[in-house]
Amino acid sequence: MTHYAIGIDIGGTSAKLALVRGDARIITKTSVPCDSRSHWRGLLADMAEAAAGLAKGRRILGVGIGCAGCIDVVGGIVRFSPNLPRWRNVPLRAFMSDRLGLPCVVDNDVNMMALGELRYGAARGALNACCITIGTGVGGGIIIGGNIYRGSGMTAGEVGHVPVVPEGIRCVCGSRGCVERYIGKEGIIRLARTAMRGKHSILAGKGPLTPLAIERAARKGDPAAGLVWERAGYYLGLLLVGIVNVLNPDVIVVGGGIANAGDLILAPARNILRERALKIPARHVKVVRSALGEDAGAIGAASELFPPYALRSRRGHIKKG
Amino acid sequence: MTHYAIGIDIGGTSAKLALVRGDARIITKTSVPCDSRSHWRGLLADMAEAAAGLAKGRRILGVGIGCAGCIDVVGGIVRFSPNLPRWRNVPLRAFMSDRLGLPCVVDNDVNMMALGELRYGAARGALNACCITIGTGVGGGIIIGGNIYRGSGMTAGEVGHVPVVPEGIRCVCGSRGCVERYIGKEGIIRLARTAMRGKHSILAGKGPLTPLAIERAARKGDPAAGLVWERAGYYLGLLLVGIVNVLNPDVIVVGGGIANAGDLILAPARNILRERALKIPARHVKVVRSALGEDAGAIGAASELFPPYALRSRRGHIKKG
Repeated sequence: MTHYAIGIDIGGTSAKLALVRGDARIITKTSVPCDSRSHWRGLLADMAEAAAGLAKGRRILGVGIGCAGCIDVVGGIVRFSPNLPRWRNVPLRAFMSDRLGLPCVVDNDVNMMALGELRYGAARGALNACCITIGTGVGGGIIIGGNIYRGSGMTAGEVGHVPVVPEGIRCVCGSRGCVERYIGKEGIIRLARTAMRGKHSILAGKGPLTPLAIERAARKGDPAAGLVWERAGYYLGLLLVGIVNVLNPDVIVVGGGIANAGDLILAPARNILRERALKIPARHVKVVRSALGEDAGAIGAASELFPPYALRSRRGHIKKG
Repeated sequence: MTHYAIGIDIGGTSAKLALVRGDARIITKTSVPCDSRSHWRGLLADMAEAAAGLAKGRRILGVGIGCAGCIDVVGGIVRFSPNLPRWRNVPLRAFMSDRLGLPCVVDNDVNMMALGELRYGAARGALNACCITIGTGVGGGIIIGGNIYRGSGMTAGEVGHVPVVPEGIRCVCGSRGCVERYIGKEGIIRLARTAMRGKHSILAGKGPLTPLAIERAARKGDPAAGLVWERAGYYLGLLLVGIVNVLNPDVIVVGGGIANAGDLILAPARNILRERALKIPARHVKVVRSALGEDAGAIGAASELFPPYALRSRRGHIKKG
């Protein structure tokens, strides 16, 4: 019999909800605006209502939720979330499970994205993989032996804060030269400001400087914009060299808004990887774009409720409704 | 009943052999010189003879061998070894097992060291750990969930080739700015040459410049020598920041000849880690020196024959004698 689950991806500006069928197809989507200043209780009540709307009349196995930040997966608690500064120790699973009367699974948003790509997307069939999401921030989800690797304190996968420039740009995390500062949204804009200096560029004085505008300008052959993606790909490539030499994965999946630039950023990154990583793991790894795109998180989250995944990876961690 | 195994650690200049008791105590040691120009058959025959000598009159469970380079663990074959350039696809396990009539296990030398530290040394009780060995080269063994993590092509753990300086010193691997170039033996000597420039140092004109001489000079308060370890600790620290943010391990064990400098290099590395890694994983991780020192590799290799490890981690990979 056909079964369904609700997948929720909580971001900084909105929570995306999807009704997902057991074959990973999204049947309906909706979203709830996230105001970083609101109290969590109100936001979660809105999400629960939206989820109940999606679920109406279907046999729903449960709800999977991905949320940015530090998540206590066993307790189903959001310890803190960088985009929702007022969220501290939010009992996300208990609240949603009680409201909806459904089993609920909670994890980091990039881990949910990685599970989506692993099970239905660009990392299908991989034993070891790394999913990198490049947007405002740069996050990572690591797959080891076909399961999410969480590390000893549930914080593994923070690839955005790998240093790539020793005394580089100061980072929000307190460090310097983190790759996020070079390839995250602000980093791309900073690279563009540098590239445009003293050069003629169609980017100059044409509305706000955004990654999308820089992408479009590069596709039109603007040299300054082209240089931005060349440089961004270089820094991404340095990150990949470290990951490939240390983890020797089958595949690296790159997603997030910045990854929409596609080969503009991935081609130079692959070149650096080919030139600088050790030959055996460099030849083995594939560096590909996310196949599920912005739906990866919601699909991965929902899939945590589908057999056989629900049984395999979360035994005892699913709060029954 | 007391049982024993032979542990062998094949290095660039000698193979160290140890008769190891089931409680991980070394009963006797010996070594066989390794000439990089010799044919593998002669070297292995010498090793087998030395091993037979150690084994005489004891109930030996088998032989564990760690060897630098790319090892096919399933096939028991040394694909290639950087220190033994004439070794290509050497059937190490088959040869030793046939000669000695004993079960034999073969792995990368740093993996064997990591197993030694995990089971009897500085990483005891860790679930996730990283062992880094700093000598002529810089190698790594990664423990995930209490077992060696090998990656998808058996090459994982090459932490020595993580880039820490974007357009840094050219490396033997073909890349630039690998951490090995800064904290490996030659890197330390290069740092000393730079530190001594235009300064009075007791290192000047006092025999060959070696890591040991630089360590001794630093302990005597020589400022140039002190600066060398400060800088080396800085580069090691940058590597640790990346490892800790990505892998969130319980412990990082640092061994190898350069690690004999102890807190001279580890204290500045820990400072960088505390200042720059993400707070939760940085507070969680311990950075410690190898507890088994230069015996870690032989003890770890021998332990692969001891129950329960032999059964747990190598089911089917142990060639019976």
